[in-house]
Amino acid sequence: MELIFQDGLIPVVVQDAETREVLMVAWADKAAVSLTLETGYAHYYSRSRRKIWKKGEESGHLQHVIQIRTDCDADTLLYLVSQSGAACHMGYRSCFYRSLDGTILFDRMIDPKTVYI
Amino acid sequence: MELIFQDGLIPVVVQDAETREVLMVAWADKAAVSLTLETGYAHYYSRSRRKIWKKGEESGHLQHVIQIRTDCDADTLLYLVSQSGAACHMGYRSCFYRSLDGTILFDRMIDPKTVYI
Repeated sequence: MELIFQDGLIPVVVQDAETREVLMVAWADKAAVSLTLETGYAHYYSRSRRKIWKKGEESGHLQHVIQIRTDCDADTLLYLVSQSGAACHMGYRSCFYRSLDGTILFDRMIDPKTVYI
Repeated sequence: MELIFQDGLIPVVVQDAETREVLMVAWADKAAVSLTLETGYAHYYSRSRRKIWKKGEESGHLQHVIQIRTDCDADTLLYLVSQSGAACHMGYRSCFYRSLDGTILFDRMIDPKTVYI
């Protein structure tokens, strides 16, 4: 089906297919969606680095994509994934590890220094 | 904590606090976040209508917000909600009712014609 990209990008919500935890939100362009479909591993578009990146290319914490869903407006994607290791570059399982007042809600899974040098 | 709004808006992922189903993604401005905190019910900013709206104001399908989390970059919010009725204006429980190829994955919960006249 026809997806709607805004300025060439579409937001992607990433959910653990097993625990149903929301792991992260990232952005994808058409090429990143195609690469994800072709390889079975999540690829995104980095707005700051202005390039496509494969999730886990540095950390080894890949996301195997089990299913891709789209919303009613076809302008947002939901990736159900099998996440190896931590989704968050801060070492937490999910990027959503804090409440709005800054309280840390979960334990760190890994020390990010051991992954990103 | 300090949230990062882009062009005045921040994306909000909405997850059912009980079933952990991802229900929808919407946008909020500062005022919508404040209204959500003050009232306990989800408010968003409509980019097409250019105004704040209370989820369920027409349909009665309100979202009681149980917890608000933010991600590592503080530029995305996650609302854990208790959703009454259907989150999607198409009558599905979740807006993410289709796979990428257009297959409908879930049953309709309500006939949207009975809610939005």
